[in-house]
Amino acid sequence: MTGRVEDFFEVRRHAERGSYERSVIDAVLDEAMYCTVGFVDDDRPVVIPTIHVRVGDTVVLHGSPASRMLRILKGGAPCAIAVTLLDGLVLARSVFNHSMNYRSVVLFGTATPIDDPERKLEAMRGFTEKILPGRWGDARVPSEKEFRGTLMLGIPIDAASAKMRSGPPSDEPEDLTLPVWAGVIPLRTVAGAPVPSPDLPPGVEVPDYLRRQFGDG
Amino acid sequence: MTGRVEDFFEVRRHAERGSYERSVIDAVLDEAMYCTVGFVDDDRPVVIPTIHVRVGDTVVLHGSPASRMLRILKGGAPCAIAVTLLDGLVLARSVFNHSMNYRSVVLFGTATPIDDPERKLEAMRGFTEKILPGRWGDARVPSEKEFRGTLMLGIPIDAASAKMRSGPPSDEPEDLTLPVWAGVIPLRTVAGAPVPSPDLPPGVEVPDYLRRQFGDG
Repeated sequence: MTGRVEDFFEVRRHAERGSYERSVIDAVLDEAMYCTVGFVDDDRPVVIPTIHVRVGDTVVLHGSPASRMLRILKGGAPCAIAVTLLDGLVLARSVFNHSMNYRSVVLFGTATPIDDPERKLEAMRGFTEKILPGRWGDARVPSEKEFRGTLMLGIPIDAASAKMRSGPPSDEPEDLTLPVWAGVIPLRTVAGAPVPSPDLPPGVEVPDYLRRQFGDG
Repeated sequence: MTGRVEDFFEVRRHAERGSYERSVIDAVLDEAMYCTVGFVDDDRPVVIPTIHVRVGDTVVLHGSPASRMLRILKGGAPCAIAVTLLDGLVLARSVFNHSMNYRSVVLFGTATPIDDPERKLEAMRGFTEKILPGRWGDARVPSEKEFRGTLMLGIPIDAASAKMRSGPPSDEPEDLTLPVWAGVIPLRTVAGAPVPSPDLPPGVEVPDYLRRQFGDG
């Protein structure tokens, strides 16, 4: 590795879409429910989707200590993490100028195991609360065995960039009068009614923190 | 690179969630609106989200010939491609067994430029029709300059796997009687009403192929 580390997260294509503001980066990391982790194994690139959570200045990954990805990252291999939120389809008059509206973050770094029990518990709470705020106070907390059986790795957010596109299509001036509809189809992720587990005993109701966010089921 | 190529797409963690069926792989590739591409640059892993389209047995990426990613891939560097569809949040009784329902594909390979004009045009049509079926027959087709200014790279789908989780949470037997709601919150991506470009001349209506899929705006 001889290049500048900046080469791995600087936004060069459409540089005007880039941001290095932590508040912007954090908002995208927090809204995204999963990330895609890239690493190098035996000289080959590998990409794996997984859930992440941001805890302060760190992106945390977790899983079984037997996971190939976590073993390789724990060993100090550099990794890259991408998250993407798709906000819309951008229909230009010309095929060439079709695009998408999105907010993405790319992060580059090296992972460190989170072994300190307090920090590890905080990260576990972070994962649970990311899936559903309020859940940590309701679900059964990890047993000693589950706690030990979870590997947590933290990657510092210090080599990261956000890239975003929003707004209408950018058409060529000579295309503006074409009789072709142009605009944006907004996209968003929505939740359906909660589906109870088939083995849920009668009388266990949808909790308030869930109903508030997702309705009654 | 000394390992088996299979090592880079075989599903090992939760092998029961894996599939190597082309119909399964193709369905996930086709439904996903973007992918995350991983490659190695100066010994470092890089991940970049981008739109892809499947044309037959090939995943196609495209963009400016000046793109770092496309230049590196065109040079024969191996790449890995991940797509992920998030289908639901899985709420188990225990924090430890929380999960997500998803369908993902990981693909490993080497890109080849698509220079043949007929194949290149077919891929362009594929990208446009992926954004919105019917769009190719309406939007202005690429000019000679736009056509030449687009680099298309194809990666064969011959080293790929799908990985999926669906259904209710898997709780420990001793947790089943806990008074904790368990189940799935289904997630899906939905489109809002089309937003016309502010510079759209009066009288250009939302076309039928758009209205059929996304409503009136």
